[in-house]
Amino acid sequence: MARKYSELRAKMSPTARAQAEEQTRQLLKEMPLQELRQARKMSQQQMAKSLHTNQSNVSRIEKRTDMYISTLRNVIKAMGGDLEVVARFPDGSVRINQFEDIDEAIKT
Amino acid sequence: MARKYSELRAKMSPTARAQAEEQTRQLLKEMPLQELRQARKMSQQQMAKSLHTNQSNVSRIEKRTDMYISTLRNVIKAMGGDLEVVARFPDGSVRINQFEDIDEAIKT
Repeated sequence: MARKYSELRAKMSPTARAQAEEQTRQLLKEMPLQELRQARKMSQQQMAKSLHTNQSNVSRIEKRTDMYISTLRNVIKAMGGDLEVVARFPDGSVRINQFEDIDEAIKT
Repeated sequence: MARKYSELRAKMSPTARAQAEEQTRQLLKEMPLQELRQARKMSQQQMAKSLHTNQSNVSRIEKRTDMYISTLRNVIKAMGGDLEVVARFPDGSVRINQFEDIDEAIKT
């Protein structure tokens, strides 16, 4: 990419930045993990294989309302995606990057 | 807001959508929790009070590379923000919304 986003960011006013973020946020689709898996055209069996676990475990994970970040990251990776953890504030968002280097076995 | 983003989203091509998302993503600042707390001008003591825990616990949490989503949400809430969990795919991002209704005590 020719443009440096860090420079572009520095030039934008905080308001413009917060507005751009809010617009993108509103464009995002929202769904729970089960729906996301279906949208990615994967079965629980396929997910289980990719996560080195069994189908009933995948089913359990999909019903959870809380889990370790590493577990969620592995689930999303199994679908071919990347997890992003963002803290949103009225004056702009920040990506939390301290969870990005872990690659552990799935915690259930 | 006058415009419905769901309609706007439906009108955008997947490529345009992915591009808008990628641009916003690149505009985001990235930092670990400790740096974020400092950027929000909060001390570990203040965080501890808000999280009904003690300062050494806050310090421990800030050093972690993995934690429960609910813990992270509480930490970010204590700073006045909201946690967003996003799965990013080459063809677009999705917000995972199954973790948003929990309000539990902090797990450490």
